Amino acid sequence: MPSFPKGAFPVVGILGGGQLARMTALAAIRMGFEVRFLLPEASGPVQGLGQSFIGDWTDAGMLRDFGAVCAVVTAESEWAPVKEAETALQGRVPVRPSSFTLDIVRHKGRQKTWLRDAGLPVPRFVCCATLEEAITEADHFGYPVLAKKYTHAYDGYGNATVRSADELREAWERLAAEDGLLIEAFVSFQRELSVLVARRPEGAHVIYPVADTEQRNHRCYAVEVPSCIEDTEADEARRIGLAAVEAVQGTGLIAVELFHTEDGDILINELAPRPHNTGHYSIEGSYTSQFENHVRAVLDLPLGNPELCTPVAIMVNVFGKRDGTASSAGLDEALAVPGVAVHVYGKPNVRMHRKMGHVTVTGNDRAVARRLAETSAAHLRL
Amino acid sequence: MPSFPKGAFPVVGILGGGQLARMTALAAIRMGFEVRFLLPEASGPVQGLGQSFIGDWTDAGMLRDFGAVCAVVTAESEWAPVKEAETALQGRVPVRPSSFTLDIVRHKGRQKTWLRDAGLPVPRFVCCATLEEAITEADHFGYPVLAKKYTHAYDGYGNATVRSADELREAWERLAAEDGLLIEAFVSFQRELSVLVARRPEGAHVIYPVADTEQRNHRCYAVEVPSCIEDTEADEARRIGLAAVEAVQGTGLIAVELFHTEDGDILINELAPRPHNTGHYSIEGSYTSQFENHVRAVLDLPLGNPELCTPVAIMVNVFGKRDGTASSAGLDEALAVPGVAVHVYGKPNVRMHRKMGHVTVTGNDRAVARRLAETSAAHLRL
Repeated sequence: MPSFPKGAFPVVGILGGGQLARMTALAAIRMGFEVRFLLPEASGPVQGLGQSFIGDWTDAGMLRDFGAVCAVVTAESEWAPVKEAETALQGRVPVRPSSFTLDIVRHKGRQKTWLRDAGLPVPRFVCCATLEEAITEADHFGYPVLAKKYTHAYDGYGNATVRSADELREAWERLAAEDGLLIEAFVSFQRELSVLVARRPEGAHVIYPVADTEQRNHRCYAVEVPSCIEDTEADEARRIGLAAVEAVQGTGLIAVELFHTEDGDILINELAPRPHNTGHYSIEGSYTSQFENHVRAVLDLPLGNPELCTPVAIMVNVFGKRDGTASSAGLDEALAVPGVAVHVYGKPNVRMHRKMGHVTVTGNDRAVARRLAETSAAHLRL
Repeated sequence: MPSFPKGAFPVVGILGGGQLARMTALAAIRMGFEVRFLLPEASGPVQGLGQSFIGDWTDAGMLRDFGAVCAVVTAESEWAPVKEAETALQGRVPVRPSSFTLDIVRHKGRQKTWLRDAGLPVPRFVCCATLEEAITEADHFGYPVLAKKYTHAYDGYGNATVRSADELREAWERLAAEDGLLIEAFVSFQRELSVLVARRPEGAHVIYPVADTEQRNHRCYAVEVPSCIEDTEADEARRIGLAAVEAVQGTGLIAVELFHTEDGDILINELAPRPHNTGHYSIEGSYTSQFENHVRAVLDLPLGNPELCTPVAIMVNVFGKRDGTASSAGLDEALAVPGVAVHVYGKPNVRMHRKMGHVTVTGNDRAVARRLAETSAAHLRL
């Protein structure tokens, strides 16, 4: 049963105002829902969409004002103040995903321990409380190892591949928190994969096809769907993805990033409890996009078909190539590439490596679609 | 060349605030453009999207304020004050489509005469200045004939099928203006078709596949693409559609409604110089939707691929079934139908027969898609 009164059109409250909030809002609006945002400062991507509440988003009064008319409050980031929202709204308005899920996911040590304890395949790792322990464990794994900051790491910020005890000392200085640092055995992988799951509060779910994801400089560069792995491996990846989401009691859209190792194993890299960059292709590529299914899931409405509506979908990110004011230079050339869907996130300021937009191409031929998407994306200066 | 300064992200001004403005805005926003609306009173469909200027939209000062930061001003309806916008903005901001196009299109007598004079196939018709003339011409055509109000007719309002001189007298009373009434020979058609053309100011264009359109009670009930007509007939329909758009120097998206007669001829029924109900399928069904191509065309940007990205697309309209406040009753059931894209226009009030939303289904099987779309649409109460 949906979580809003029969008859009323629901208002979806979103904590956050980046491109994920933007694309979630566009999906919600299409179905006739209203959207509102709560965020600490004004944000380009949601400007001109719904109503923005700007202020201290951890403040109980602010959260109550914001949530008052909402059918549900959701978050575009695992760092949004979901616990504070739950406390302020006291169950009168559901908050999805829950702080239970986010508390597990947003601490890398807790997340990996939780998944391992649930019997799920993860790389070998140890949560190290001290540098001495880290050095011992790294020796045990054998260098190189990965040193991972427990919280607030993204797009490679907060992770280091270390090749010696000296490098580990340096990484510890930079990345360790009071509770230490995660040391993880290096995984030789053939490819990185992503599985998206949309899950309703009572557990009904849909699983998207496995996607091949390609990182450059620790950032998602391109996504190709369907994955090139074998069908049995894809089934295994989807099985693991769903089990991981169920293990953390995820609600809404959750992305599961996976490694397909040299040995052919599937290991969980990490979870993202929200619509995810590796699912942007689904706006054009799937019958129901990750954003629409996120909205449906958090409102406890029936989920849509996650299957591809096209033989192949390719998504290429557009990153900032400089620091300054965003520009439409190159847009003409980007749109002239046949068959492209160009998405620009409305960020007024560009920074080096900042995610500014993406381009999706669907079609029959993977190589052709890839070339078109890359050509179009390369034209965009933003 | 686009009509906005290199570097800046354009603001698209839209005269009007109904569902066509709404869906145009959603397409523009996705590409990173800002939108603003000018309309005589607040409107649900564009609430929460861009900035609405509410007031006398024929007022020169209002139009200047509205247009000041726009890269282009467009209109969601042939009845919007485009002439006034051109006068107020004095060429500093392009207005597309132009009043030249709209002056022809929005008067049915002028439109049909213009198209006939351009050598294009239209049903036999006469612009009648007096009732006596109308009776003579109707006798000449043979009853039944169609009596059509010259202006402000839509969804069957303003048209009458008359079977006798008495009925014609009655229709004249109701529909004739100072310059009279259009009398048109009744066309026996196999089916009604629609061809959408997106055209840039210098004439570059794309033509969408021919659609089969189905009217019930003079309203668009369903659209199926591609049309079931023969390829040679489809080519002819597209050729005529483009020629009609060129004859009126249309810019932006223009829909050409056609008859496929019992004799196998293609005749133009009428033009709609804007995104059109018969093109809503293109949001999911085409590589580039009619709304996106409208935005690209009026901004003089390269046009996107109008071809279907799916074997078949079916669109079914959702009409108001009562008078009152819009409701989400039935939404749960509507979304539970597999593979549907549900569009709800955000109109706070429902009226009998009012267009409240639509449902699109894409897939491989026409009959299956049709059944799913109709089933979903029937669940929506709105």
